[in-house]
Amino acid sequence: MESFCVRSVLVTGSDRGVGLGLVTRFLEKQNPPEWVFATSLDLEGFYGKKLRRLALCHPNLVVLQLDIRDLKSIEAAVKKVEEHVKENGLTLLINNAGILVKFTILANETMENMACLYKTNTIGTLQVSQAFLPLLKTAALRSPVDGLSCSKAAIINISSDFGSIEKMAGWHLSQVISYRCSKAALNMLTRCQSLGYKQFGILCLSVHPGWVKTAMGTLLVPTTVKDSTTGIVKVLSAVTERDTGSFLDWEGNTVPW
Amino acid sequence: MESFCVRSVLVTGSDRGVGLGLVTRFLEKQNPPEWVFATSLDLEGFYGKKLRRLALCHPNLVVLQLDIRDLKSIEAAVKKVEEHVKENGLTLLINNAGILVKFTILANETMENMACLYKTNTIGTLQVSQAFLPLLKTAALRSPVDGLSCSKAAIINISSDFGSIEKMAGWHLSQVISYRCSKAALNMLTRCQSLGYKQFGILCLSVHPGWVKTAMGTLLVPTTVKDSTTGIVKVLSAVTERDTGSFLDWEGNTVPW
Repeated sequence: MESFCVRSVLVTGSDRGVGLGLVTRFLEKQNPPEWVFATSLDLEGFYGKKLRRLALCHPNLVVLQLDIRDLKSIEAAVKKVEEHVKENGLTLLINNAGILVKFTILANETMENMACLYKTNTIGTLQVSQAFLPLLKTAALRSPVDGLSCSKAAIINISSDFGSIEKMAGWHLSQVISYRCSKAALNMLTRCQSLGYKQFGILCLSVHPGWVKTAMGTLLVPTTVKDSTTGIVKVLSAVTERDTGSFLDWEGNTVPW
Repeated sequence: MESFCVRSVLVTGSDRGVGLGLVTRFLEKQNPPEWVFATSLDLEGFYGKKLRRLALCHPNLVVLQLDIRDLKSIEAAVKKVEEHVKENGLTLLINNAGILVKFTILANETMENMACLYKTNTIGTLQVSQAFLPLLKTAALRSPVDGLSCSKAAIINISSDFGSIEKMAGWHLSQVISYRCSKAALNMLTRCQSLGYKQFGILCLSVHPGWVKTAMGTLLVPTTVKDSTTGIVKVLSAVTERDTGSFLDWEGNTVPW
C-alpha cells in the first residue's frame, strides 16, 4: 500500500463524512501527498472551520472554498491549486461533493428537486473535472508510471449503489428518485470520461463508498467512515488500466451499472 | 398481433419521427384504439399543422398541445384526455418526447445544455407519468387482463442505447454527454417506476427505437421509422409481467444498462 504514491490529491466536499475521511486517510499515509486539497462549500460554517483547524496541524493540507455548481468558484479553486502544485499538475481528483436533500418517493418527487440534485451531483462533477483537466493532463505527462493508475492521474467520482439501475439497492428503504437518477447519470459521466480521457493517461472510476454513517447515510449504517475510506484508498492503490471506466465499491467489488 | 388490444394510447412528441410513426402504427391496426392521443409542443408549427390535418381523417385521433417541461400544460392535457377516455382511464402512455440540441463532446459540454436535456428527457418524463398515473391506475383496475401487459396499463419510456452505460453505443461517432446522461437517468426512472407502479398493475419499460432516420438521428440510419415503430408495437404486444423494468430494443432484444 505504501508503494501507492500520490503526489497531490483534491477531494471536493471534504469538510465532513466520506470526503473528510478520505482527506484524513491521505494525511495519515506513511508517504503522504505533497499536497492534499480539501474543499468546503462554506469555510465559515461549523464544518468549514473544523477543516481549517485541521489544516493548522498539517502544512501539506490546503483548504479551499468551492461551490461545484459555480464556474467562477471552480476557476478560483483551480488557480489556487495551480499555485501550489506548479508544473507537477494534480495527480488525483476525487469528486466527492454531492447532495441528497429530501427522502422523496415517486409520488412527491418534483422538478425542482430533480434539477437541484442533477446540478450538483452530475453537472457539478462534470464542471470540476473539465476545469481540472489541464492539471491532470500535466500530472499524467510528467509521471514516469506506465499505463493508467491513481499514482499517475485519475478522476474518481464518488457514486452510490443507489445509482445502480441493475441493483436498485435499498429501494424499499428509500426511493429517492432524484438521487438515484443523478447517480446513474454520474456513472454514465464516468464512462464517458474514461473513454475520452484515456488518451491523456487519466484513469476514471466510479466508487460506491458503502452505506456509511454520515449526515446523508442515516438509514442503515453497516460501514464506518474509517472502514469505507480505508477501503477506498486501498482500492485506488490497486486499480490499473483495465479498471478505468468501471464501478467499484469500497471493498473493490464491481457494482453492476 | 391483432389480439393486442389497446383501448387508448397517448404518445408524447408525436408530430414527427418515431412518435408520429407510433401514432400511425396504432391508427393502422386492424383493431385500432378507441382513442389515440398525439401531442405536439407547437400545434401552429409545420409539424403540428400536419398532425392536425392527419386528425381530420381519423376521428379516433386527438391532437393535443403539450410541453412536458410545464406542469400547467401537462395538467391541461390530462384533463382533455380524461374528457375522452372517461371512466376507462388511459391504457398506454408512451413517453417519446425528447431532445438532443447540440452534438457536444466532453470538452465543450455545458451546465446549461446538461440541465436543458435533463429537464426534458428525464424530468419531463417523470412529470408526465406522475400526472397520468391516476388514469393509468383506472385503466389497470378496469382491465379484465391478468398480470401486467400493454393491453392493461403501461408506461413506455423511449430511451436510447446511447444511454446504455455498459454499451456506450456510438461513442466514436457522437459523445453527446448531456444526451447520454439524461437517457441513463431515464432508464433509472423506468426501473423506479416499474418497482413503484407494479402494485397498481402498470407495466413499465425502456425502449431503444434503433438508430432511426429522423431529425435527431442523422449520423447512421440503419432503421427506418416504419421498421422501428412496427417493431416497437410488436414488442409492446408481447411484453408481460416478467419484462417490467427492462430495457428492450425495437426488435425485442435486451439492451444492457
